[in-house]
Amino acid sequence: MSENAYDIGLPRTPANFQPLTPIGFLERAASVFPDHTAIVHGALRRSYADFYARARQLASALTGRGLERGDTVSVMLANTPPMLECHYGVPMCGAVLHSINTRLDAAIIAFQLDHAMAKLVIVDREFAPLMAEALALATVSPQVIRYDDAEYSGPGALEAAPEYESLLAEGDPTFAWTPPEDEWDAISINYTSGTTGHPKGVVSHHRGAYLLAQGNALTTSMARHSVYLWTLPMFHCNGWCFPWTLSAVAGTHVCLRQVRSDAIWSALASEGVTHLCGAPIVMSLIHGAPESEKRDLGRRVQFLTAAAPPPESVLTSMDAAGFDVTHLYGLTETYGPSVVNEWHEDWSDLPAPERARLKARQGVRYLPLEGLDVLDPDSMTPVPRDGQTMGEVMFRGNVVMKGYFRNPQATQEALAGGWFHSGDLGVVHPDGYIQLKDRSKDIIISGGENISSIEVEEALYRHAAVAVAAVVAMPHAKWGETPCAFVELHAGQSADEPALRSWCRTHLAPYKVPGRIVFETIPRTSTGKIQKFVLRERAAALAE
Amino acid sequence: MSENAYDIGLPRTPANFQPLTPIGFLERAASVFPDHTAIVHGALRRSYADFYARARQLASALTGRGLERGDTVSVMLANTPPMLECHYGVPMCGAVLHSINTRLDAAIIAFQLDHAMAKLVIVDREFAPLMAEALALATVSPQVIRYDDAEYSGPGALEAAPEYESLLAEGDPTFAWTPPEDEWDAISINYTSGTTGHPKGVVSHHRGAYLLAQGNALTTSMARHSVYLWTLPMFHCNGWCFPWTLSAVAGTHVCLRQVRSDAIWSALASEGVTHLCGAPIVMSLIHGAPESEKRDLGRRVQFLTAAAPPPESVLTSMDAAGFDVTHLYGLTETYGPSVVNEWHEDWSDLPAPERARLKARQGVRYLPLEGLDVLDPDSMTPVPRDGQTMGEVMFRGNVVMKGYFRNPQATQEALAGGWFHSGDLGVVHPDGYIQLKDRSKDIIISGGENISSIEVEEALYRHAAVAVAAVVAMPHAKWGETPCAFVELHAGQSADEPALRSWCRTHLAPYKVPGRIVFETIPRTSTGKIQKFVLRERAAALAE
Repeated sequence: MSENAYDIGLPRTPANFQPLTPIGFLERAASVFPDHTAIVHGALRRSYADFYARARQLASALTGRGLERGDTVSVMLANTPPMLECHYGVPMCGAVLHSINTRLDAAIIAFQLDHAMAKLVIVDREFAPLMAEALALATVSPQVIRYDDAEYSGPGALEAAPEYESLLAEGDPTFAWTPPEDEWDAISINYTSGTTGHPKGVVSHHRGAYLLAQGNALTTSMARHSVYLWTLPMFHCNGWCFPWTLSAVAGTHVCLRQVRSDAIWSALASEGVTHLCGAPIVMSLIHGAPESEKRDLGRRVQFLTAAAPPPESVLTSMDAAGFDVTHLYGLTETYGPSVVNEWHEDWSDLPAPERARLKARQGVRYLPLEGLDVLDPDSMTPVPRDGQTMGEVMFRGNVVMKGYFRNPQATQEALAGGWFHSGDLGVVHPDGYIQLKDRSKDIIISGGENISSIEVEEALYRHAAVAVAAVVAMPHAKWGETPCAFVELHAGQSADEPALRSWCRTHLAPYKVPGRIVFETIPRTSTGKIQKFVLRERAAALAE
Repeated sequence: MSENAYDIGLPRTPANFQPLTPIGFLERAASVFPDHTAIVHGALRRSYADFYARARQLASALTGRGLERGDTVSVMLANTPPMLECHYGVPMCGAVLHSINTRLDAAIIAFQLDHAMAKLVIVDREFAPLMAEALALATVSPQVIRYDDAEYSGPGALEAAPEYESLLAEGDPTFAWTPPEDEWDAISINYTSGTTGHPKGVVSHHRGAYLLAQGNALTTSMARHSVYLWTLPMFHCNGWCFPWTLSAVAGTHVCLRQVRSDAIWSALASEGVTHLCGAPIVMSLIHGAPESEKRDLGRRVQFLTAAAPPPESVLTSMDAAGFDVTHLYGLTETYGPSVVNEWHEDWSDLPAPERARLKARQGVRYLPLEGLDVLDPDSMTPVPRDGQTMGEVMFRGNVVMKGYFRNPQATQEALAGGWFHSGDLGVVHPDGYIQLKDRSKDIIISGGENISSIEVEEALYRHAAVAVAAVVAMPHAKWGETPCAFVELHAGQSADEPALRSWCRTHLAPYKVPGRIVFETIPRTSTGKIQKFVLRERAAALAE
């Protein structure tokens, strides 16, 4: 870069350059609106002053227990106040937050704990039995903290571990946390479901989290003191960065241990909820609730959905129930949503099927995403904007991950050529809106969670009778999709559908067990590759 | 910084790191909402597609004329479409935008052109005579472009210079602009009014402009497609970054050559204006307009004010006229507003005088400002939060200027000790809100005691007859200094010096009562700020 007069004598100094971090949003909210309700959880109401003091206490306690910059804190928590506190307290001490999907099986959890080199684990009592199993399998020996939620009364485990409140009691609520040394420092790690091989640890940094958190507020026109209902799991891409967004607007988090229609409608009515997020299944829960649970809210509520295009019937029902639905798209590698179906006012006058067709498109880049396009992955040139030509959806900008943890090869491949390669196939319409045509072809999305077809296939392959297994997505009324397995048996061996489903239940998390197992010859290409697109059509027919 | 596993193999790449720049907001708005109205100017309505194409054309034409990274483009323009185009087209070619206050005199303009090393000047025909005078005085010989606005029909000058549209015609509307090489690159330079010594050139960078532009939208809860009326001069701190904010929300700019009450009310009614900014004088224009000009808007409009605390009477009148008034504070060195009087909902239930007292406080940090405090400038320690102890208001963070152009000493002094020293004196209230008490140079020192000119002015404002009050130091043989007040009375009201001095004696400590009260028109700057240095000279003359 050639130097000019504007470069001379004008360096970065602490007065005019500070690392971007979303942690500062909480400090500000607590300073400006200390008495405003930050968190609602059952009967509990916690102010911003308390939220901030407890986050600092957590950071102080973690520091006291030896956690340092770049250490991993693994948490397995429901959408409860400690999960929010961890989104601030963990990075306040320089550590990295690793949120674990509560529906995984023990082997994968153990893999994640080992790969992330977990130093400390915080686990909800409900998930403690599973965590105990994972810890027994893992190589690392993290410190363990148990959280006993007053809203949970079922069985637990790890009873010898200190309880979360006693951990906090070790800390100083006035702890002088410091911002990250660099805005490129890691703030969190989230493991993808791992369509090929092991799960990959997606590392996010403070800069990206700051920018996407603000992007959420700008994209959804989130005004000061918005009220957000936690129907999206916070373990999923850090709740799309909304734990940080709400502090930026000094809003209120309404926690929810379980996504049930009565609890949702009750919170909508009593807490003045303005925004909530979720997969289409959450919308089905809302508009499909018994009439006795529904309320007339007397206002519009913003529902942000991703994972699958919202069907016309759902959009119509949600509209009637008082919800504006916005369709978002993104990946763990893009901090959650970084693409939005920006709605044009005049589209609202179109007939319902046309509106649904337009709403089904994933859309355009978020404000903090600098580039979004569909490219031919070989030539890296954009496809024509004809709504027909398929290419790979690619992202570029400040809300693309730092990379995959301890996996330089995968990082380099994913970020090759100056773009993040999503693995999703799509088209660009003449107006520049992108639309997915095939979620990366191995992935099944069930209830908003990714299921790797390969993982299911591998479980089937472990059964002695299975010669060939191919798993694809089958449409499912409740979950959106469920795995459908096609199986060829070894000659002379026998197995039936109940036997194989039972086998899968012992080797897979329940939601990954195939909804159907079909015994028939699997179609292949001339070079021997399984033709999954044929199987997807077959599965769709079976679902009808 | 110690290296840990999260630092290894995860470098910045073009895929996951791009320089922050507000220019990208326009590219996005034009791509997503090409047909949405971006600019209204008289009968002219320009879409986002056109706005973006013209900005690229300008960048292309400037490049063609030899403008390069770090070159200065000086503009002297009213709030017209070319001014908006310059906020994008100039930095798109790597150059730096220098907006000149249209009410300065030729000598100061010549100083700025020389100091900024202007390579090219764009001047509105109305200001061309003044610019011609300045160019004759200046050492530099920039290329000159004249803009003939259809909304202006008065005399001009520089008739031999190419007209703005012919400059644009030299450029390519599909010009492939590039983002800045570094987000720390300069985007603009704005000269302070320079009440002491030469004006200083405040350099802003892309990173700060991006962050403050978003901060404006978040602070004012600016929803998509907001409509902004240009009652604030764009030459003033780049219109507080709102030229960039509006692209972030795909909003509409309503231009205004002259700030007149009929034009304001007409635009408010016909264009659906949601937001406007200005000094208190603009509010006086609005609520003091003839009843025949006023309209019932049937909605609330957001008015953002700075420069002086809004008096109670003005707040009451504005509220009745349908405006929510937000009090902002900042300096050219902080990109315009970076402090906001965040309003607490329960304050709205208080009596009007109490509301005005709370609203008069400057407030708390903007979201993108990392630090704001009142420090003892000698010890650099915070003053007690008692609402009494004065100190210097200091800023720290990403919306503090890059520095003063070609003035390393002033830059180092201003940014010494990790804080930007504003020169404003203030206090911190127990709730953390700061309140200005004076510019350090406006403080009156009488018999060794500090007297806040603002406190004396506030006492005068509480008198029903006083419309405007300005208090400065007057030399005094015995006490060193004593307050001297300049007063404008409301139309139809009367008061004389003995009456007002008597009033002050009942509201102020005896030593704070003005030694003289003068009834005359108070001189103001182009942005409506009272010119205290003129009053100080006047007071000195009166003392002799």
